[in-house]
Amino acid sequence: MGKSLKILGKLSIVSIGLLLSVAAQKPKEPVYPKAPSEILAEAPKSAWLEISPENIVIFTLKDGTSFTIELASEFTPIHASNVRKLVRAGWFDSAAIVRVQDNYVVQWGRPEGTPIPDGIVAKPPAEYDWQFRANKFTPLGFRDAYARQAGYLGTWPAATNNTKAWLTHCYGMIGVGRDMAPDTGTGGELYTVIGHAPRHLDRNITLVGRVLSGMENLTARPRGTGQLGFYENPNQQIGFSSAKIAADLPAAEKPKYQALNPKSTTFRSWLHAKANRGGPFFILPARAIDICNAQVPTRLTPN
Amino acid sequence: MGKSLKILGKLSIVSIGLLLSVAAQKPKEPVYPKAPSEILAEAPKSAWLEISPENIVIFTLKDGTSFTIELASEFTPIHASNVRKLVRAGWFDSAAIVRVQDNYVVQWGRPEGTPIPDGIVAKPPAEYDWQFRANKFTPLGFRDAYARQAGYLGTWPAATNNTKAWLTHCYGMIGVGRDMAPDTGTGGELYTVIGHAPRHLDRNITLVGRVLSGMENLTARPRGTGQLGFYENPNQQIGFSSAKIAADLPAAEKPKYQALNPKSTTFRSWLHAKANRGGPFFILPARAIDICNAQVPTRLTPN
Repeated sequence: MGKSLKILGKLSIVSIGLLLSVAAQKPKEPVYPKAPSEILAEAPKSAWLEISPENIVIFTLKDGTSFTIELASEFTPIHASNVRKLVRAGWFDSAAIVRVQDNYVVQWGRPEGTPIPDGIVAKPPAEYDWQFRANKFTPLGFRDAYARQAGYLGTWPAATNNTKAWLTHCYGMIGVGRDMAPDTGTGGELYTVIGHAPRHLDRNITLVGRVLSGMENLTARPRGTGQLGFYENPNQQIGFSSAKIAADLPAAEKPKYQALNPKSTTFRSWLHAKANRGGPFFILPARAIDICNAQVPTRLTPN
Repeated sequence: MGKSLKILGKLSIVSIGLLLSVAAQKPKEPVYPKAPSEILAEAPKSAWLEISPENIVIFTLKDGTSFTIELASEFTPIHASNVRKLVRAGWFDSAAIVRVQDNYVVQWGRPEGTPIPDGIVAKPPAEYDWQFRANKFTPLGFRDAYARQAGYLGTWPAATNNTKAWLTHCYGMIGVGRDMAPDTGTGGELYTVIGHAPRHLDRNITLVGRVLSGMENLTARPRGTGQLGFYENPNQQIGFSSAKIAADLPAAEKPKYQALNPKSTTFRSWLHAKANRGGPFFILPARAIDICNAQVPTRLTPN
């Protein structure tokens, strides 16, 4: 929010020992805690988990832009499998972005009534929540506005009431559009969150994944002027040219991604730094963080 | 998130009495609670507060689009007065959108070093928080991830630790860009939040207002590819053609806006309906709501 590029802490840091010794000399240069980005940059390779290429889907639009998503197969296997089969059957090759509702969602799919390909589960059960198991849940460690506790299921933003646990509708999470009944979403129509987390949708819709890259190719689209942000004219829709599973691509074209392990030391340091911003710009650290401001970092796997 | 336009509750409702009598007849048609939009549509005139035309600023861009903001004069009088004076001195007539950072902010202003007009407070004090007064604070009534309590100061989203109270960085709120020192933001550089609420900025930056309309003319812009989302090339910037205070416009051109009174019965009903979504689509109501999903409704004043 600074007036210039100067605002991100360039001055770096520092062990407690150095801090004390510098303090003893009454320094003119203040010392600051490490920025979250600095902590990430120093993460050991072992802190990063490789994302399976079976779970990575690359969507390319007719305007040449693209975006890449990760499927949450571990949690929503039936819907993730449907999406994978739809991709391989060419369903999304003629899909389009049909809806952009400001501060809410971007939605893409095929016209209602398009026959679904063979092999797709036509009425998948709701994959909204699961039995809570403390050893499978990494607590955020800060209050949540919606649930008893927020945290992570695997590398995914989640919440729990200590009986059930579920994925949360954070920015960039991908849900399965459906009609009124919970079993009416095949995965042929997807949306991603582009505003303040609509957490009232948690446990009401299957969250099947998240955007890994190219989010700006979804968010910077004209908002639809129809009801719920649908494009009123079909010619406003943005067509797709292809969708591919990373696992199906030749090695040279296969994008590789990693997610930071929420159980790693780096992750805890990063989270602490995010919740306690220091540096020359911040006057008062929040000493708290919302789960949707603490989504697990992901990155292209370095060579 | 429905696959069609059907998802917003069209079936309406209903007193407890009717609910019971219908239930006794084993109805085929389910009955649903009123949707938030239905409650708003039925609000009496007395529930709406007129926004002062001195606090309404209309920004017009060179591409012919515009957006309108409300200044939070009651809470940040020095910065609001600066913005008003800058508008009247023509400062924003040659401003530009210089930064669009995905899931964060859109920022506009003049090049650093542009001399500020006479009459502007060059080093306004931080207007970040104020003494908490229970009778001036309308509680949200649900947990907050960042503060002891969330709620409203006047019609503005706010939080408190029961000692101080402050405005919160919700979607569409407008902040004053500054350098490292708190008194370095004149109001000549402004930003608005376009993603999940960056609440860690609360009490670190002066929030001077909110967007009343035209938000989509800020959010649907190409993201900047420079550091922090700044446009790398000046020719990517989107120039302004004018900024005007509503109070200065002839009656026929003067936009009029209202905000719902958070102390009204309509507001409490609306908030309850938002926190407890019913209707044919929702399976499990959240029974909670985050302050940034419960911003006070505003509207053009009906004729």
